[in-house]
Order: sequence, then C-alpha cells, then structure tokens
Amino acid sequence: MIVTISPRGSMDQLSQLEIESLKLNAQSHLYQLYRRCSLAVLASGLNSDNADDLFDQYKDFDIRLIRRERGIQIELINPPVEAFVDGKIMRGIQEHLFAVLRDILFVEDKYRDRPKDSALLTNEVFDVLRNARLLKLEQDPNMVVCWGGHSINDIEYKYTKEVGYQLGLRDLDVCTGCGPGAMKGPMKGAAIGHAKQRNPDSRFVGLTEPSIIAAEPPNQIVNQLVIMPDIEKRLEAFVRLGHGVIIFPGGVGTAEEFLYLLGIKLHPENRGHPLPLILTGPESSRAYFEEIDAFIGATLGEEAQALYQIVIDEPATVAQLMFAGIENVRGHRKAVGDSYQFNWSLKIDDDFQQPFIPNHDNMAALAIQPELPKAQLAANLRRVFSGLVAGNVKSDAMRLVEQHGPFELTGDPSIMAKMDKLLAAFVKQQRMKLPGSDYQPCYRIRES
Amino acid sequence: MIVTISPRGSMDQLSQLEIESLKLNAQSHLYQLYRRCSLAVLASGLNSDNADDLFDQYKDFDIRLIRRERGIQIELINPPVEAFVDGKIMRGIQEHLFAVLRDILFVEDKYRDRPKDSALLTNEVFDVLRNARLLKLEQDPNMVVCWGGHSINDIEYKYTKEVGYQLGLRDLDVCTGCGPGAMKGPMKGAAIGHAKQRNPDSRFVGLTEPSIIAAEPPNQIVNQLVIMPDIEKRLEAFVRLGHGVIIFPGGVGTAEEFLYLLGIKLHPENRGHPLPLILTGPESSRAYFEEIDAFIGATLGEEAQALYQIVIDEPATVAQLMFAGIENVRGHRKAVGDSYQFNWSLKIDDDFQQPFIPNHDNMAALAIQPELPKAQLAANLRRVFSGLVAGNVKSDAMRLVEQHGPFELTGDPSIMAKMDKLLAAFVKQQRMKLPGSDYQPCYRIRES
Amino acid sequence: MIVTISPRGSMDQLSQLEIESLKLNAQSHLYQLYRRCSLAVLASGLNSDNADDLFDQYKDFDIRLIRRERGIQIELINPPVEAFVDGKIMRGIQEHLFAVLRDILFVEDKYRDRPKDSALLTNEVFDVLRNARLLKLEQDPNMVVCWGGHSINDIEYKYTKEVGYQLGLRDLDVCTGCGPGAMKGPMKGAAIGHAKQRNPDSRFVGLTEPSIIAAEPPNQIVNQLVIMPDIEKRLEAFVRLGHGVIIFPGGVGTAEEFLYLLGIKLHPENRGHPLPLILTGPESSRAYFEEIDAFIGATLGEEAQALYQIVIDEPATVAQLMFAGIENVRGHRKAVGDSYQFNWSLKIDDDFQQPFIPNHDNMAALAIQPELPKAQLAANLRRVFSGLVAGNVKSDAMRLVEQHGPFELTGDPSIMAKMDKLLAAFVKQQRMKLPGSDYQPCYRIRES
Amino acid sequence: MIVTISPRGSMDQLSQLEIESLKLNAQSHLYQLYRRCSLAVLASGLNSDNADDLFDQYKDFDIRLIRRERGIQIELINPPVEAFVDGKIMRGIQEHLFAVLRDILFVEDKYRDRPKDSALLTNEVFDVLRNARLLKLEQDPNMVVCWGGHSINDIEYKYTKEVGYQLGLRDLDVCTGCGPGAMKGPMKGAAIGHAKQRNPDSRFVGLTEPSIIAAEPPNQIVNQLVIMPDIEKRLEAFVRLGHGVIIFPGGVGTAEEFLYLLGIKLHPENRGHPLPLILTGPESSRAYFEEIDAFIGATLGEEAQALYQIVIDEPATVAQLMFAGIENVRGHRKAVGDSYQFNWSLKIDDDFQQPFIPNHDNMAALAIQPELPKAQLAANLRRVFSGLVAGNVKSDAMRLVEQHGPFELTGDPSIMAKMDKLLAAFVKQQRMKLPGSDYQPCYRIRES
Repeated sequence: MIVTISPRGSMDQLSQLEIESLKLNAQSHLYQLYRRCSLAVLASGLNSDNADDLFDQYKDFDIRLIRRERGIQIELINPPVEAFVDGKIMRGIQEHLFAVLRDILFVEDKYRDRPKDSALLTNEVFDVLRNARLLKLEQDPNMVVCWGGHSINDIEYKYTKEVGYQLGLRDLDVCTGCGPGAMKGPMKGAAIGHAKQRNPDSRFVGLTEPSIIAAEPPNQIVNQLVIMPDIEKRLEAFVRLGHGVIIFPGGVGTAEEFLYLLGIKLHPENRGHPLPLILTGPESSRAYFEEIDAFIGATLGEEAQALYQIVIDEPATVAQLMFAGIENVRGHRKAVGDSYQFNWSLKIDDDFQQPFIPNHDNMAALAIQPELPKAQLAANLRRVFSGLVAGNVKSDAMRLVEQHGPFELTGDPSIMAKMDKLLAAFVKQQRMKLPGSDYQPCYRIRES
Repeated sequence: MIVTISPRGSMDQLSQLEIESLKLNAQSHLYQLYRRCSLAVLASGLNSDNADDLFDQYKDFDIRLIRRERGIQIELINPPVEAFVDGKIMRGIQEHLFAVLRDILFVEDKYRDRPKDSALLTNEVFDVLRNARLLKLEQDPNMVVCWGGHSINDIEYKYTKEVGYQLGLRDLDVCTGCGPGAMKGPMKGAAIGHAKQRNPDSRFVGLTEPSIIAAEPPNQIVNQLVIMPDIEKRLEAFVRLGHGVIIFPGGVGTAEEFLYLLGIKLHPENRGHPLPLILTGPESSRAYFEEIDAFIGATLGEEAQALYQIVIDEPATVAQLMFAGIENVRGHRKAVGDSYQFNWSLKIDDDFQQPFIPNHDNMAALAIQPELPKAQLAANLRRVFSGLVAGNVKSDAMRLVEQHGPFELTGDPSIMAKMDKLLAAFVKQQRMKLPGSDYQPCYRIRES
Repeated sequence: MIVTISPRGSMDQLSQLEIESLKLNAQSHLYQLYRRCSLAVLASGLNSDNADDLFDQYKDFDIRLIRRERGIQIELINPPVEAFVDGKIMRGIQEHLFAVLRDILFVEDKYRDRPKDSALLTNEVFDVLRNARLLKLEQDPNMVVCWGGHSINDIEYKYTKEVGYQLGLRDLDVCTGCGPGAMKGPMKGAAIGHAKQRNPDSRFVGLTEPSIIAAEPPNQIVNQLVIMPDIEKRLEAFVRLGHGVIIFPGGVGTAEEFLYLLGIKLHPENRGHPLPLILTGPESSRAYFEEIDAFIGATLGEEAQALYQIVIDEPATVAQLMFAGIENVRGHRKAVGDSYQFNWSLKIDDDFQQPFIPNHDNMAALAIQPELPKAQLAANLRRVFSGLVAGNVKSDAMRLVEQHGPFELTGDPSIMAKMDKLLAAFVKQQRMKLPGSDYQPCYRIRES
Repeated sequence: MIVTISPRGSMDQLSQLEIESLKLNAQSHLYQLYRRCSLAVLASGLNSDNADDLFDQYKDFDIRLIRRERGIQIELINPPVEAFVDGKIMRGIQEHLFAVLRDILFVEDKYRDRPKDSALLTNEVFDVLRNARLLKLEQDPNMVVCWGGHSINDIEYKYTKEVGYQLGLRDLDVCTGCGPGAMKGPMKGAAIGHAKQRNPDSRFVGLTEPSIIAAEPPNQIVNQLVIMPDIEKRLEAFVRLGHGVIIFPGGVGTAEEFLYLLGIKLHPENRGHPLPLILTGPESSRAYFEEIDAFIGATLGEEAQALYQIVIDEPATVAQLMFAGIENVRGHRKAVGDSYQFNWSLKIDDDFQQPFIPNHDNMAALAIQPELPKAQLAANLRRVFSGLVAGNVKSDAMRLVEQHGPFELTGDPSIMAKMDKLLAAFVKQQRMKLPGSDYQPCYRIRES
C-alpha cells in the first residue's frame, strides 16, 4: 500500500538541498531518524509504549519525499492503517507528519554541528520553537505545562481531564510531552472548556524528542507538535515556553521533570522569578504526593519544598491558582521587558543543558550526596531519573540494560534508601510501563 | 447581582422598534417568553428537566435591554451562578442568550400574525433559519440530525458519543434538540473527531422551542442555537435542515420524532426522496429497537419498516452508512436543483405542520385506527406522543394534567395494547424523566 | 449571449416565495425595476448619464433567476460586454448584481405597503441597511459621506481624489451616491490611502435608488452597494450612516443634498448635535463656493451659514478636520448611548421624509418665501432642486418635461433671482449633464 | 524626536543573539547597513534618487532595537516626517521597516560566510524569499515581473498604470524593483484592477538590495518588501519568482535586467523553458524599442530577438498574452514537478550569479567582442550596464567616479558605437537620473 500525502500545517516550501539531504542515502542516520519519527506519528492510535515492538511490527514501512508543483509530498509505503479513516489520512496525523519533517530538517540545516555554549543552546531551543511558528507576537501568556505519567489509572486520568476542563474554561492553553495518560487528559478536558468558551485558537502543544516519540506517540489533540533534538532541549523548551507548570501523578519521567524544574528554581539568580508550580491529583493520590514531598524534603530541603504547592482533589482551585500565577508572570515579563512567549530571563545552568548519555558508566558515576549544593544535587537526581526513563522505554538504553544488566546506582545510603522506596512504589503502582507488560527493573541500588 | 452582557454571535444591531417591543410592558406575553427562554439558557449547567422547579428557584431573575453605542446590551438581574466562570459569563451561554433575543424578535417582527398556509409555514421555518445565519451558500451537505432521549443510561450515552466521534472523523456536523443525553453525546464525540481532523468550522446545531427549552436547556457544545416558534416548526426544521437522521434510544419525544419522519416519508410524493434514517444503539439496546420496530410493523406496516435501517453496536458502520447516504442526498439535490441547505423538495403535509394543542379534548379525539391511511395514522400517533411529551415536561400541559387527571387515549384495542406496552417499557427504563424523580404517568389508555 | 452568474457578496439563500415574486410575471413592476437596476449595474463601465439611451441600447437584455444547489443563480441574456474581462464577469459587478437582487426583494418582502409614519420610515431605512450587512457592531465611527457632482472638471476630479487619499491615510471610509465624478474620486484616492495604511477592510459604500442608478451607475470601487427605495430614504440613509459630510463642487443634485442636510441641522432639536459638514474644492472652485455660501446667506441666513465650514485647496486640512469632528461624534454617541453605526438621535422631520413627486403641479406649488421658518424654506428649496435633478436625468420626470415643457418655479422675486443666477452658473459650468450633451433647461423661473 | 515602532508584517520574535548582533557595535558594517536601509524605507515619500543627499540630510537619524514583552520594538531618532500621518507612522512603512530588519538579520545569521557554489547561491536566494514568507504552497502562478526606468515621462507612466490595471483585472500580481516610475505605475494600476475584482490578497512584491534602496526607495504600494543581499541575487530572485516578465521603457538599469534575462534564456539548457517576456510602451516609445531591438539584433543576433515580443500601445493585449503565457508556465511546472513558486529548473550560469564589483579595472577589463558565445557576451554586456547603474546612483561607485573620472569601456568598435548611441539616447531622454539634476556621464567609450 502506497499513499501520497500533501502538506498541511506550518510547512514551507523545501529547497532542493533540503530534499536531497533526506534522499541521498536511505542508510543515513538522518533518514533513519526521520523514518522512525514518522512511523511513531502514524502509530499514534496504537496503545503501546514499546518502541521496538512498533518498529518490528512495521519493518516494511518506508517513507519518501517527492517534489511537486505545490511543494513537497510525502509518500508512505505500508503505513499503519489506524492513521486513516475510510482510506484517508487523519488531518491531525497529516500535520504531525509534516511537523516531523520540518523540525528534523531545520535542526539538520542549522545545527548540524551541535552547539556547546550555554547561550547557543538556549538559542537553538528558541530557534526550533520559532521555526515551528509557536512564538506568536500577539499571544498573551496562557500556556500551562502539564507533566505526569503516560501510565496512570482511570481515576487519575479523569482528574487530569477535569483539571484541563477548568483550565480551558479560563482560556488557558496546554503543553505536554504529547503522549497518552496525563499528557492527553488535560488536553481533552481543555478542548471541551475551550469549546464552551468558543475559543477558536486553542493551542495544544506537544513537545517530544526522537528517542521518546515512539514510546509515547503524540495524541491527536496536539495541534502543535515539535520534535526537539534531545531530552535536555525538550525540558528547556517546556520551562521557557510555559507560563506555569502542573504536575500530575506519574513515574520516573515525571520525577525527572520535577527535579529538573526544582533544580532551576533553586538557582540563586532565579529567586523571585515567577513560574507557578502546582502538584495535584485526586483524593486517591494524596499518599503519592506526600511521598514525593517527603523525598524532596529529605534531599533538597525546605527551601525546595517552598517552591511548589500541593492541591488535592480541587480542579477549579488549581485552575484559579494557575490563572492568578500567570497574571504575575505577565506582570513580571512586562516589567523586565522579557518576551511573553519565551522566558529568556530564567537562568538555566550548563548542568541542566548538557546532554546526559545514560549508560552504565555515567549512571554509576553520578554523585548523590547530601553535602552537594542543592541545585547540583537536583541536577544529578534529575540525571538518575532520566537514565531510568531511558532504561525503561528508550531503545538505546534498553539494549544496554539487556546486554549488561541493570544500571547500578550508588550514593548516600539514606538518600538511596528513600529513592529505592519511591521507585518501588512506582513499580507497584504500575507507573513504569503500561499495565499488561511485566516490568523488569532497569536499575539496582548498590550499597556504596 | 446585576451583570451586563455584550453581544456575541450572529447578532445584528437592533432597531428602536425592536427594543421597544421587549421593553414596553414587562407583563406582556412576549417579554415573559423572552425572560423564560433566557433563564433556560442560563441554567444550562443545571441538571434538571423540571421547568417549573427552575422558574420557582429563580423567581427574582430579571432581564432588560440597554441600547449602547456598539448595539444592544443585556442586563441580567440575579442570574444562575452556574453560567459564570470566576464571575464572567461563559461565552457559549453568552451566544445563546443573544440567539434567544434574535429569534424571538425576528418571529415577533415578521410573523406576529401566525401564517396558516402550508407554503407560508415552510417559508417561516426557512426564514427563521436563514435569519440565524444557518444556511450558508458554500456549505456542502453534511448535517446529521441525531434524535434520542434526554434521559438515557451510561452505556447508551457512551455509545452516542462514540457514534458522534465516528461522524466527526468523517467531517459530518451534528444537529439535535440541544438538551442533555442523546442530544449532547453525539456532539461531544463529534467535537473530538473534528479536533483530530482539524475541522475549524464544526457546526453543532441545537433546535429548540419555547415550551421545551426550560426542560431541556441547550448544552454548551451547541454553537448554533435556534429557537423555533413551536414543536411543529422545530420538527420541520430538523427534516429540512438535516441531510440524514440517526435515532438513538429515547422515550416519548423520540417516538414523536420518529413517527413524524415516518409519516412524511410515507407520503407518495416523497417516494424515492433520499433522506437516510438509521436507528442505532449499543448491544444492550437491541431489545428496545426490536420493540419499536415491531410497533411500527404492527401499526404502519412493512412499507414503513422499509424506510429505516437498524444497526446495533457498530458506530463506525453507522457513520459510513450516513456518509454514503448523504452523498446520495447531494447528488439528488444537484440533479433537481434543490438547495444543499434546505430540503425544499420534501413534501410535508398540512397534517404535520398545523400546531397540535395537547389538551384532554384533543388527545381524546385522536383517531388511532388501522384502516386510516398510513401517513394519517402516523400523523395521529405523532400527536399522541407529542401530547405525552407535553404532559411530562411542558408547563401548560402539566398543569392541565394536575387539574384534570391524566390524558385519556382511545383507539383500536390491538394498537392501544401495543402502545401501552411500549409506554410501560419507557417508564420502566426511566426514559420519561431523569432518574431520581418519581414518574407519574400523564396518560391512561381507555378501553374504547 | 447567455451568461450564468453565481452569488457573491452579502447574499443569502432565497426562499421559494422570493424567487417566485420575480418570476411570476415578467411584465410586473417589480420585475421591470429589477431588470433596469441590474442593467444599470452591468453598464457601470459606460460613460453616460442618459438612462433612456442605455435602455434603448440594451432592449434585448433580459435577466432570470434559477434555483441551484448552492442558492440562486442569475442568468443574463445579452448583457453589456463591458462588464466582462475576457468573457468573465468582473467580480465587483457580480457583487453589485446580487446587491440589487437582495435590496429589491427585501423591500418587496417587508415593506410592500409603504409605511407612512415617521418612525416607521426611519425604521425602514435602518432595516434596509442592516439587511445589507452595513451596520457592524464592532465598527468604529469612520464613515465620511462625500457629495458632489457627477459631471466635474479634471482639476476638481483630481482634488476629490487627493481629499480621498488624505481621508484614507487616516483610516476613514467613504460613502457616496456611487456614480462617476465626485462620487468616484474620493473612493479612488481613499483606496490608495488605505493600501498604504494596509487597511484590509476598506468600506466604499454606494447609496443609490432605482430612479437614479441608470443615470449614475455605481463605480466599481464601491464594495458595498445599497439600493434605497427612493431619494428621500437615500438621503436619510446618508445622514444616519455617515459620521461627517464633505461637499465637493456639483450641480443641482449636490444642492439638493446640501439643502436637505442644512434643513435638518436647522431643526431646534438638532442644536449641538455633532455632524461635521465641510465644503471644499480646489483654488479654481473658490468662486463657486462663495456663490453657494451667498445663496445660503440670502435664503437661510447666518444661522445656516454657521453650520458648515468652507476649506479651499487644503486636502490634508479637510481630512484632519473631519477626523477630529468624527472623534466628537464618537464621544457624543457614547455619551448618549446612541449606536455608532446609525444616527438614531438625529431628528428628521416628516417634511424631509415624505416622498416628493416631481411633476408640474407639485413644482409650481412649492412656496419659496423668506417669511417661512428656515427649516421649512430649506425643505422646499430641497424639493426644488430634487425636481430639477429629476427633470435632468430621471426618466419619468424627463418625459413630463418633454410633454409639457419645463417645470415652472415661482416664489419671492429676490430669492428667485438668486436661484436663477445659481442655476445659470451650473449650466455654464457644465454641471447639469456630462459634457458633450447639449443641455436643455428643464425649468423656467416665472415672475410671480 | 524619538518614536517607538511596534512590529508589523512577517516579523517573528527575535533571539537575544540576533538583537545583540545589531546592538553590539554601532560602528559595525552590519549596523550601518541596517541604519541606511531603514532610512531609505522611511524616505519613501521623498522624490529623489540621490542616496548621498538623503544620508547628508538625515545625518542625525539613528535607529535602535528594544526588547519588549511582545517582541522587538524599533526606536527611531529624528526620522523623516514624511513617513508619518499626523504623528503616526504609516503602516506600509512600518511593515517595510521590519522587512529590512528581518532580511538583514537572516542573511547575517545564516549566510555570513558568503557561499560561492552555484547551487548554494540559488539556495540562498530561495532561503531569503522563503524566510520573507513569499513562497506560499497554495498560491497559483500569477506573478508578473515589471522592469522599467525609475525616471520615465508622464505618458509612459500612465501607460505602465494602464498595463498594471489590465494585469490586475486578470488577477495577476506584480513584482518590481520597488522604486518610483515603472516600478510603481504597474502596481498602482493593478491595485485598482484588483479592487474591481475584489481580490483580497493582492501581492505587490518589491525586490531591492542595500546599495540601490536609498536611490530607489520602496513605494508604499509594495506590500511584500525583500532586501536581497546584492544585485546578482536580486536579479536571480526576479527570474525565479516571476512567471513572466514585462519590460517598460527605462535606462541602464532596465538594460541590465533585459540583458541578464536574455543571457539566461540563451543558455542551451533553457531552450523551450517557458518564461514569457514582453517589451511594451505607449505609441511614443515605439522608436525607443526599435532602437533596443536593433541593438540586441546587432549584438546577440536573431536567436536572442526570438526570445521576446514587442507590443506597442495595447495594454489589454499585453495582459492577455501574459495571462496565456503564465498558463503555459503552470503546465510546464506541473509536468516536470517544479515548484509553482520558485523556478528551480531554470538554469542560471555561474557567470550571472557571481557578484560583479564595478570599479575602473573591472569595467575596463570586460570583453565586448562579437566572437564570444552569445550567452557570455550577454553576461558581459549585463555587467557593463550594471556598472553604469552603480556609477549613476550607487554610493561606492559614484565615489570612485568622482575620484578617478568616468569608467572607461572598450570593445569591438562596431558594438561600442551602437552602445554609445544607445546611452546617448538614454541621457537625452532623461532616463539616467530624475529630471532636474544635471546628468554627468559616469562612463567614456574608449577607442580600442
């Protein structure tokens, strides 16, 4: 089966050079990246978080570019049928397909030689978002980043929808990591809220990256999909694009995001910098958040605990707090002349920007010690959880774990014991993987 | 509490005469009509189908018009707080408020002297819809009328959402009677389908009338609300506006609608006139539809049974059949030069257009005899069910029943027995009123 | 040659009744009216102010309505080729054709029995404009009515363009009687001004009426054409729609308009009512305006002279004055709660609303006496000039003059002498008819 | 006087790096370039083609960028008052100011190291146009490039307007070098044509470059202004963007453009490549075109003469030919799969792409010999005229001529004699500079 797809969404004409770069060599890394991301987008209707399964299942899938009088067309060979309605591609998926093309070519064209300097890294994040037409001059601050697990239970899922609905009633837009679960619920809810408020320009932004997209394919409510080059730039995009952050129950990925943001907020230059942060869930998640809060208290201390608010089972309150918090953000941006659309004035340390490669050596080398400066400890804890996400769902790291056994983690015994307990709870609550699969831990806490 | 509301939606400037007609006399029938419809719209968030309760609860509610430089403004005194988010009116409700004003003034202005002639009645239906900007020249046929109960169970409700989703994926719009239950589910589902298909112009049309609006307040997904002058014009609006009809499980109102359409389809001049009609529900509704089908077979015969299709538990099939059926409709309209937006060429007999006043005499006088021409029998059966709807939820008829006891129905014993059984089933399945209220039948089948 | 034209512009679906009313009887008055107005619109490229010539030339022109799936279509038989570019109708003319249809049907449908009461007459004017979608709620006051001759010289024409340009640079829109000369120049100039200011919603409103449209066919810059039922409603539409008035050099038509507005402004209830009025022309028109000013002084006195401003050869100043004057208008409307789009609070006396039929008896009977109240004298002088316009270019009155000789005018000798002088100047300056035709006066001043 | 200007037009958010690059050093070349181009845009109302005069007159003009919450703002210090209407900047100029910023930053950011390779040069042209949002996927081929003198007489100017009008009536868009004269007339005419055709998306593209912009400031009808990096890329942009070319009377700049296009059309790989080329002017220009035609015949031969058509005094015919020619272009693009918006398949030799620096050595070294291949001779003749343009109006070259005397030109005596005659005619017809200035030739034909 061969299908030809015309452009849709923020797609420009392509230059001959750009087309060539994807054509020249089907064996090239770039082409493989492009094919895999495209397949992930096409598979968004499937319910799986196992990327390898996906790639195995669609071994004979292929993708090609054809130049046409009205710009480029995409030719799909043997795509998943779930992407089609009565033989025609869903327009949401069609847009996502061209978003993948747009982002991959843009990074290839301008940032092939990965920049290293902190200012340049931030510039790259900005440039990718701008190229995706996400930074509109006239837009007021209203973007709520929602983090939380891709694998959550029904009560939690309904709660994320309810919070999204309350956000939507207040004309707030939603940005997530663009997979299922807590990444989808708030968008669905907000869509209904926006409909009741007749909001014609709802923005449901999905930020993903090549190594996670296949495990967490973008849900189709996402109407602005961006593929950031790696997890560190994706995280930076979240906090520079968002005007406030809500954290729902989740697993190691959510913990990574939470620690990333706490580490940044702990930076002395960010003292007083407004960026509301709310942890919330249904009544049944109360214990979950108490546990997280205790872990933060034990590791990063009260100073860190003061940086967020926990709200249990009050969706409207969450939305009201977020709305008020974003008004603050707007006032602050206006006062300092910072862009409404990109939080330039937030200080992000090099520690949080440089890519962390999750392998056995790097994981084992992470220092988890109470005497470290809090921001640095947060950075390292973030890396631990980042590595666990990779070991759970990212192909490269999964292969390493298969070959060499679980990652070994060491550190201060008291902290490590708490981490062990937290991770065990995640496993027990089925937050590591979608229910149905039998979870094999990718880590081992080593007594140091 | 006094709130001032600015215009939104298809609202024009008003003339001084128009404003005067609502101002002059707060005791006037027109003003009372206007106040009640407005209150119903404001109460759309409340979960009740008892209009009197609503009016009792908001006795001190009042509404006034104020002329301003940018047109009229509406002043609300003591409106239901449910219509507001953090003190601001929901924009969906704001639009509905002005739709009420628009339609009531239009009918008052042009059709104060109720026309009697069949052609003029159809013209009025057309004129009200046109004035509401519902008849767009460039729009392709895609309007699916969904009928069904306002009081249905969870499984049925989910099923209506799923059918709506499948319709939405195929870019079909939805028109309902604009209350809860089967009038809301298909719209919610279609909204998600349209979002995935990036359909920016979703139309969710709600057709209501003054005597039902308070019992079935428009859900806020409805983005085009029209208040037709009475039930007969509302029914005519459904079948002239829609390009196909889906019937979900429901009670006497749904039965009224079904019989109305069958009566029209049975007219000899409508033979071969394409207007797809599908009855559908989840597996658990199979018996319900078998019962309905049997009742039709027993009263209107096989000829009538040939005019619809029953599909059980296959949402995608329903949508595919409807899509194909509407393609037929388009072809037919093009061939005969009939409007895509208003089904002029469908013959509707005077019998189905003249208002039926549900009181004890009129109900008792209805002839229900097997020897009547089928279309006429359908017309009378339609009136029976129409009267039962009124006795259940419309204030005037409810008062009559309170005063004089249930309506008495007579007719052919065999038919009446079947009707009795059908109605008993409706009662048992809680299709007459929302669960929670204790249903007192408003009818009695009298042995003739 | 037969051409079929699809709808364009503010055209709704038509009802069967509406189509029938134009079809039933090709001999009907309504059909003849429709045919003549349509032909006038099609002839807008021709340079003639002789309606009879036009109708003679296109004796075999015919027009019919056809119902189609996307609304009505117009069939043109033997239309003027000037309306087409390479065989396709110009879209400006296409819009005008449907505007004619819209307005004629609307008046026929709602105002067939001509209302008599002053409030109802104003309501009709409002209703026709609203039906033409001219009264947008969100529009700020910015409409400048430009009056002036259809037959003016090159220097004057360039000057009207320059004033229009300066208006356009200030985002002001233009409304004229929609023919050539001073009715076209300001629009052409404003179009360039708007282009430089990137104004995407320029409104160039043309107000005409059936008896003048053929003599002064709408220029195609007009993007909102309205056919008012008669000259009195057209004049009322000008002053209720406009937020300020500019008068360029002209002939008897311009004098009629000027006297109409002065008569209204002189009404005691309109004292202090802001509606800026500026007379302007190039240096070469200085004498012309001095003459007009003197005539007003001699007839209506200083009080009337205080109601306008004369500005010679300063286009930018005119635009600045008008801009500032309209700011006043806006403030006044806001203060009294009057609509930005329709000047309800301007008092217009019955005297200026009731149609005046220009025939020999009515013309002879007009009282032109200094002792009359000023407003009434203005009303009668307005009628004199109205009759002269008719005698010059309107078919019915032209035929009367052909049959019975010129209209005879009597009145106070001193005033009549001044009028004679003014009219003689108009004749000499070729302001009565387009140059090329040999002007035969349609009037005779009789010694009383 | 200090004025702050907000963004307008195709302006994105700017990154901190981009802002810095213009701030860091007010003495930098980039800043100077930016300041001069901005001043030129602000001076578009002035009637002068002398850049140095302009810069002298506005010595105290300065420009700065300020970061604000809604993106960048531009601060103007002592700008020309002609850019303002009652103290507010004209929105057309506002757009042009931001177009200058956009293009200068884009080239600096991506093409600081000037590419040398032919494919990369074409890519740069494409990239600059794409970044300016000029290459819309959905746009049909309709862009007519109009070349001609900035200094032409009234009859010629009116003729260019008439041709533009006829193009506009056929929905064709116009692209010029964006100065006065033949660069403005066709746009003004087309604007009226488009208005009559209700074309809401008229595109009036102005392509300029830093060294010419001050001498030929963009007229404000231009609604898409692009500053190409140099004359060679500007010429390439014209022929890749345009779907047909019209040449009006002009001087050395027009001759350069004509020879550039002939040189490309003469390339063997472009044989049969459709790109209609029409030379046209009023009756009074007949001799002018005969002279040009003879010069081409004498230098490049009949083969070259076959590549264009001369049409005298028939504006509608020109538009019809162009319309038909563009239909051909569309068919060809569709057939070969080339973009409708960018003529990738036209072969442009390195000879026509590499920048030519007009100084005494380079001018003197140009080989003008009949035995050269025709395309190469055309390339050299193009360079001769390019140098003469520079000597006439571009600052750097004007200074060289002031210091070292006129450029000396040598070559085949017969060709040089013909060139001398042609240039003398240009001088006599005041095509070199705007009338009023006393033209001093910047060249001398040397006997070889």
